[in-house]
Amino acid sequence: MTDGPTHLLERLIQQRVTLTLKDSRHLTGKLLGVDEHMNLVLDDAEETTPDVTRHLGRVVLRGSNVVSLNAPQGGGPSS
Amino acid sequence: MTDGPTHLLERLIQQRVTLTLKDSRHLTGKLLGVDEHMNLVLDDAEETTPDVTRHLGRVVLRGSNVVSLNAPQGGGPSS
Amino acid sequence: MTDGPTHLLERLIQQRVTLTLKDSRHLTGKLLGVDEHMNLVLDDAEETTPDVTRHLGRVVLRGSNVVSLNAPQGGGPSS
Amino acid sequence: MTDGPTHLLERLIQQRVTLTLKDSRHLTGKLLGVDEHMNLVLDDAEETTPDVTRHLGRVVLRGSNVVSLNAPQGGGPSS
Amino acid sequence: MTDGPTHLLERLIQQRVTLTLKDSRHLTGKLLGVDEHMNLVLDDAEETTPDVTRHLGRVVLRGSNVVSLNAPQGGGPSS
Amino acid sequence: MTDGPTHLLERLIQQRVTLTLKDSRHLTGKLLGVDEHMNLVLDDAEETTPDVTRHLGRVVLRGSNVVSLNAPQGGGPSS
Amino acid sequence: MTDGPTHLLERLIQQRVTLTLKDSRHLTGKLLGVDEHMNLVLDDAEETTPDVTRHLGRVVLRGSNVVSLNAPQGGGPSS
Repeated sequence: MTDGPTHLLERLIQQRVTLTLKDSRHLTGKLLGVDEHMNLVLDDAEETTPDVTRHLGRVVLRGSNVVSLNAPQGGGPSS
Repeated sequence: MTDGPTHLLERLIQQRVTLTLKDSRHLTGKLLGVDEHMNLVLDDAEETTPDVTRHLGRVVLRGSNVVSLNAPQGGGPSS
Repeated sequence: MTDGPTHLLERLIQQRVTLTLKDSRHLTGKLLGVDEHMNLVLDDAEETTPDVTRHLGRVVLRGSNVVSLNAPQGGGPSS
Repeated sequence: MTDGPTHLLERLIQQRVTLTLKDSRHLTGKLLGVDEHMNLVLDDAEETTPDVTRHLGRVVLRGSNVVSLNAPQGGGPSS
Repeated sequence: MTDGPTHLLERLIQQRVTLTLKDSRHLTGKLLGVDEHMNLVLDDAEETTPDVTRHLGRVVLRGSNVVSLNAPQGGGPSS
Repeated sequence: MTDGPTHLLERLIQQRVTLTLKDSRHLTGKLLGVDEHMNLVLDDAEETTPDVTRHLGRVVLRGSNVVSLNAPQGGGPSS
Repeated sequence: MTDGPTHLLERLIQQRVTLTLKDSRHLTGKLLGVDEHMNLVLDDAEETTPDVTRHLGRVVLRGSNVVSLNAPQGGGPSS
């Protein structure tokens, strides 16, 4: 299962990703770290709403609040 | 239990599937990977609503947010 | 505990069952597989609402979303 | 802890019990089986609302949806 | 940690306690048993609302629905 | 990690603390015990609302309902 | 995975951080401790709303209620 979720997340480190959280917030930032609970660390994180972009700096997210992680450029060849 | 949920999910890799999430979103994409928590990776993912289709690229979904996975063509002979 | 929930579910494989999900959807289909988390696989699944029946094909359901499984014909003698 | 919850549930097998579920439904039926997650099997189950009684046959309930189980006759001497 | 929650609950067996459940119901009854998940058994249980008291007999409660247990007389000397 | 959450909670035993629960209730009482799930025992507990203070006696709280514990005097020198 | 979430949290000890909780509260304080469940201890904690800042002293937070932790200054060089 070499293209499993954990493997892909590790290949995305240092790339910019967008998260959707359970409270409907969207955060974009550079992925610095991840663990097996899908706890995540973002650097240069920004929260974007239709109205405004708020700069947050470094953010640690508890995995239980993460719905999905979107990597527009993917994580290298695999498909 | 050779037709159990995990076994079937692995046979669906590289097929297009449609997910229903707890927040009522529907995502369609090619299944790239899955693990025992039902964390999933989709490639060429699209979110479809009655009004619009939004292209998302590669998406990692945390299993705890997944309600069901629908594979219109099934996963090969088994029934 | 030979009539425990897991034992009964395995005896229901290949029978048509109706599921009630936490999001209030009702799905009917032939039970293909089940595991210890009550993750389920249905074949020829249909979602029925008061207004319409929608054919879904093969569906994998994450057990955490399942409220109950109703087997009108039971699973063989046991009561 | 010989009067613990699991012990009592096993003594209630073959008796009629009433369940309260998280979605506020009430089900009555003969308890056929139970496991350590409080997954339950009811036979001759009926769902009762103020307006109507619906016969369901055999029902498997995922323990995580069960709030409480009421056994009007108790489970034999113990108090 | 001899005054920990589990230890205290065991000392409360055979006493009348009042439970607050997540669905806001209040149940009062004699505590017959408890386990490490805070699954509880009450005897002579009553559900009390501002308007009415309903006698329930013996009730098994799944710990995940319990918010708090109130023992007006405490569990013997300890404070 | 000598100032970790569990360590601090143990140092707070016998002090008055205020809890915020998921159902928005606030309880104040003397902390008698705690375990690794953050199940808690309060003595001389009081529930305070803007309108009224209700005396509850001894209360056992299931950790999964606890949001935060506030100790105005801290737990001794550590900062 | 040296920049994983747990590693970063430990490097943030003694720094001021801002938490977002599931009940939408925001707390700011000096991080005193953290464990593997993301249970956290804050010192000199303040709850800030658009209208008011309330001083809370020392606060223990159960990790399951934490959505995210924001460290404006990051946790030292790593990006």
